[in-house]
Amino acid sequence: MRIKFIIVGLLLTMAIHANASEDKYWRILSPDEQTELEVKLEPDSLYYRLSSKGKRLLRWSKLGLALKDAPPLQANLHLTSTDISITDQSWQPVWGEHASVANHYQQLILGLQETTSPERLINYTFRVFNDGLGFRYGLPANDGQPKQLTVAEELTEFAFDRNFSAWWIPAYRDQRYEYQYLNSALSSVDVAHTPFTLEDKQAGIAVAIHEAALVDYASMTLRNQSDNQITFNADLVPWANGDKAYIRLPFNSPWRTITVAEKAVDLLNSSLVLNLNEPPAENVDISYIKPGKYMGIWWEMHIGEKDWSPGPKQGATTERAMQYIDFASQHDIDGVLVEGWNSGWEGNWWERTPTFSFTEATQGFDIEKVSQYAKDKGLRLIGHHETAAGISYYEQQMAEGFSLYQKLGVQSVKMGYVGTRLDGKEWHHGQFMVRHFAKVVKTAAANQIMINAHETIKDTGLRRTYPNLMTRESVRGMEYNGGSPDTGNLPNHTVIIPFTRGLAGPIDFTPGIFNFNYQKYRPHNRVPTTLAKQLALYVTLYSPLQMAADLPENYADHPAFAFIDAVPTDWQKSVALQGNIGEFLVTARQDKHSDRWYVGATTNEEPRVISLPLNFLEPDMTYRAIRYQDGSGAHWENNPGDYDIVEQQVRAGQSLTLDLKAGGGQAIEFIPLQ
Amino acid sequence: MRIKFIIVGLLLTMAIHANASEDKYWRILSPDEQTELEVKLEPDSLYYRLSSKGKRLLRWSKLGLALKDAPPLQANLHLTSTDISITDQSWQPVWGEHASVANHYQQLILGLQETTSPERLINYTFRVFNDGLGFRYGLPANDGQPKQLTVAEELTEFAFDRNFSAWWIPAYRDQRYEYQYLNSALSSVDVAHTPFTLEDKQAGIAVAIHEAALVDYASMTLRNQSDNQITFNADLVPWANGDKAYIRLPFNSPWRTITVAEKAVDLLNSSLVLNLNEPPAENVDISYIKPGKYMGIWWEMHIGEKDWSPGPKQGATTERAMQYIDFASQHDIDGVLVEGWNSGWEGNWWERTPTFSFTEATQGFDIEKVSQYAKDKGLRLIGHHETAAGISYYEQQMAEGFSLYQKLGVQSVKMGYVGTRLDGKEWHHGQFMVRHFAKVVKTAAANQIMINAHETIKDTGLRRTYPNLMTRESVRGMEYNGGSPDTGNLPNHTVIIPFTRGLAGPIDFTPGIFNFNYQKYRPHNRVPTTLAKQLALYVTLYSPLQMAADLPENYADHPAFAFIDAVPTDWQKSVALQGNIGEFLVTARQDKHSDRWYVGATTNEEPRVISLPLNFLEPDMTYRAIRYQDGSGAHWENNPGDYDIVEQQVRAGQSLTLDLKAGGGQAIEFIPLQ
Repeated sequence: MRIKFIIVGLLLTMAIHANASEDKYWRILSPDEQTELEVKLEPDSLYYRLSSKGKRLLRWSKLGLALKDAPPLQANLHLTSTDISITDQSWQPVWGEHASVANHYQQLILGLQETTSPERLINYTFRVFNDGLGFRYGLPANDGQPKQLTVAEELTEFAFDRNFSAWWIPAYRDQRYEYQYLNSALSSVDVAHTPFTLEDKQAGIAVAIHEAALVDYASMTLRNQSDNQITFNADLVPWANGDKAYIRLPFNSPWRTITVAEKAVDLLNSSLVLNLNEPPAENVDISYIKPGKYMGIWWEMHIGEKDWSPGPKQGATTERAMQYIDFASQHDIDGVLVEGWNSGWEGNWWERTPTFSFTEATQGFDIEKVSQYAKDKGLRLIGHHETAAGISYYEQQMAEGFSLYQKLGVQSVKMGYVGTRLDGKEWHHGQFMVRHFAKVVKTAAANQIMINAHETIKDTGLRRTYPNLMTRESVRGMEYNGGSPDTGNLPNHTVIIPFTRGLAGPIDFTPGIFNFNYQKYRPHNRVPTTLAKQLALYVTLYSPLQMAADLPENYADHPAFAFIDAVPTDWQKSVALQGNIGEFLVTARQDKHSDRWYVGATTNEEPRVISLPLNFLEPDMTYRAIRYQDGSGAHWENNPGDYDIVEQQVRAGQSLTLDLKAGGGQAIEFIPLQ
Repeated sequence: MRIKFIIVGLLLTMAIHANASEDKYWRILSPDEQTELEVKLEPDSLYYRLSSKGKRLLRWSKLGLALKDAPPLQANLHLTSTDISITDQSWQPVWGEHASVANHYQQLILGLQETTSPERLINYTFRVFNDGLGFRYGLPANDGQPKQLTVAEELTEFAFDRNFSAWWIPAYRDQRYEYQYLNSALSSVDVAHTPFTLEDKQAGIAVAIHEAALVDYASMTLRNQSDNQITFNADLVPWANGDKAYIRLPFNSPWRTITVAEKAVDLLNSSLVLNLNEPPAENVDISYIKPGKYMGIWWEMHIGEKDWSPGPKQGATTERAMQYIDFASQHDIDGVLVEGWNSGWEGNWWERTPTFSFTEATQGFDIEKVSQYAKDKGLRLIGHHETAAGISYYEQQMAEGFSLYQKLGVQSVKMGYVGTRLDGKEWHHGQFMVRHFAKVVKTAAANQIMINAHETIKDTGLRRTYPNLMTRESVRGMEYNGGSPDTGNLPNHTVIIPFTRGLAGPIDFTPGIFNFNYQKYRPHNRVPTTLAKQLALYVTLYSPLQMAADLPENYADHPAFAFIDAVPTDWQKSVALQGNIGEFLVTARQDKHSDRWYVGATTNEEPRVISLPLNFLEPDMTYRAIRYQDGSGAHWENNPGDYDIVEQQVRAGQSLTLDLKAGGGQAIEFIPLQ
């Protein structure tokens, strides 16, 4: 096990007060004393409020849980215990944006009990970090009380202190989590998914509300408590029957997280959500877990040249898969995905009860041959389980499906949940999906398989606990530019999602389109970036499994593919350097296995000149910088393919001037010269 | 009657074709040939599509009406008549942004009939303007067919050709039309009110979808036909029973309008919506209709210093009203509003069945005395009818209420419809409200009273037909900054609404706050502008009745009040000169009754330096420019009151440099020197 814990802090456990009812107010500061949590106990509720650097973020906000067939757990509480401690650890993820993560916080645990019958117990844990707050509910297993409860409503409030500018996607809509982001006053939000990103640039406040460790509960969305106002409630995505979540005592809720920074770009440098997830089990097998890059038979379906189903345009053929493998084996690509490899894709598969087999290949595709061919060439076939949201149907075959893959040497599987409801009735963000997806991740682990899931539950940092849970789409990804459906993303989309969706975790956005001339079947669509920006996305959008999404013939002999070959997917360090939501982003990352650095710079539809100080490089070292930059005539709309590769020697402390064209970007590799 | 029509164009009526079924395609150009409408008849529907300056705006989009208890009127139509004509008029509004309005379009009227039983007739009228398109449905009174129909759904499609950046407010929410605007990709919109503003800055396209002449039908909202896509349907706001609209043949629907410009700021210069409304009746009495300015007992309630109801904080007292009248009479203010003047305001009036009297004054307020005092001082009391959305209750007293006002010499009435549903069940934007409000406007006219309505149906240009329908709020106005409710507007709000809500018509936003230090009862609120921007709003936000919203003691001896005194409310010409949605706006208007010009320049939270060429001024004339500008240290958040008044002489062709501070603005009066 590579996870190490170093407790260097002070651990204080305060004695239980004899007259606990006198304790009604607590003030807890972060280690740097800049984040201030206040908690008070009133007859109607426990309240919390939050400030950062002297600026109020949340006014007094209520906490509590409403239970089905029982009174709410909120009012008439008295204190039974107080526990204040400081933790200062660092831990080493199996893979990630950082080789080591600092976890430093002050914690307050309040034990409370109802003063009236049935005198139930509840506890509240608050962790105050330099960059925000996490808190959760705990319900001990009270003697003589029911062990199984149904949560009817979570009563957590977020009473924001000001009307921020909000970046959000709506909850309770049919396309799950796959929307371009809305920007509005906080007061105009009705109900939003998390991460929910807020900023007041003039005041120097950026905030992201999200959750951590959603293990067996419903997703939290944020609902405006009173239309057109700025106090929000945690709103749990219900089961089809209206129940919010089924819990079993003892129970800990997911953490509600409030990440805080002075500038939105600094939200990207927080590890608060990951820190609030549990480490993996002591003996977990990580031998098969390897970040890397993949290609696959996929984009050609989205641009209409091929179909998922058998027939004259069948994409998944043995021959085509071998072409991908041939190309991939000559490059730093670890796997090849073949969508449509299995039987059951005929017709409008997304509209009917699924007919997929997860063990039987479609005609024209020899999975044994292809997987062996891949192994012979030093890479792996990547599995694909598209469920079409038919969970019950899928679960009957799931174990067998993963078992087949393990037998074939497949080490990662792409999951799909296309559909508006699961099993025809459940939201993708309710407890039903949370439970199903936990089964998937565990079954995959038992078969030594990594998971890359599309249309699944949102990310809450569980990759820390389950290191085979690599990445997920859960975003309006590249496929929308392909044209199925026929409405592409705007150029600003990729400079919004790192500040919103990206705060949840890795994104399998599938960048790397080099051929912009694919309008034969998709006359209305285009990729809204330049080629250089496609490369930059490998750095600005983090994923441990990154796709090179275009077709091998579009990459063949293309000089720019050298960047895709070179760019790592596992990092020593990562830092978001500059950016504004919806405008631009510059991110630098250092390879986990070398001293090389990589920079991605991206802009929206506006051209932009950025001065980039090279402060992140190692002092006293000279680097060869290979810059993949927009050509002088580059423009996403009419000249996306214009790019130049320029080399120069640089040292830390110097600055580069990045000339990003409209919808453009720049990707840079820094190789130490020794 | 001051409305004149000048038909100078060519009128062509084409003969009905012998074999009409061969006519299946029409192409109609605007007079300048830059707007191109195409119409085609297919077995399933009549379709239209639209281009401007060679750029496609709408792909082929269906047209039709679904009726209750009858088949839809859409498919299986054959041509019975074609009428193509050109109209080139100009007309003179009673009041408005322009003394004369050009109305120049090419029109196509298609008469169609079902080929199958019941062989109903329908006609489609398209008017193609240089700046867009209007079209409507007509249902003739067929012999032997029912004359009363229920519209179940309008089948109008808007199949946009690209994924624009959209500025919108959501429909079907409780606060009616009073939201801060959302900005998102068109594909992220679910259902939106109109005006619905779209732009693709790089392509040079701005579009606003709205409607004209909503006389007796339901409001049109726009609903995404397929979640996350870019084809929208006209979605009519239903009655509580689900019916959309009750119509009587012969019937013409409201016009569906598509205003087009290269830049969003040019949308503000369109008169397309007004042009599609009918002129007033020939003999309409306009003797009492006078644009002007007003003050009133109102803001002191919003900032918590006074109450609407009797008691220690009663706002509406005889003495307080006389203070307002004293101040107003020394300035160019025409009326004084007294909210809470009548009985029935006790307690939470907005939560109960109304108890208002519309004829009986509250204790402490002598309406006879106040209205006489106002007349003696040369101005008028302004009436107030707050219905609290209790329409049936109100209509019983309405006529008597207006009649009392006429007797007292009141010449304008502010209407209020605070509440989430009318009569506890109807939307504010359904046909129920349309019908009620028509009664209000007509009853007011019969009593020689102008209407200023808050929380009413959206504006569709009916002021042309009913010139006593002066202005309306229907926006998240100044009151939200007051603090009831407790969530103010963001600084960018006032540079969004001219491009969105403002395209519908006049806005009673109630600018003019000079005292920013009103946090005694509203610690979380502030007006998010500088003082100079407050003045600029009198020019950038058009209303024929403009409030000077602050208290007389805050205006007393204030040098900046000279601008409010001077600024007209009726204009010879208006031109939006420069602007970007959500960023800034500069508008110039010429007084209708002098050669003076007025400029308002406003910015969002960002400071901005604007070069303003004075091309709009009369050549060869010298003007004294009185500039009310942000002081060097002005900032909306911490120094809003810092302003300077600077005078200089200028001539047409010169440029001024406007130095707008954060959340700031500038207001300029240009007085010809002769």
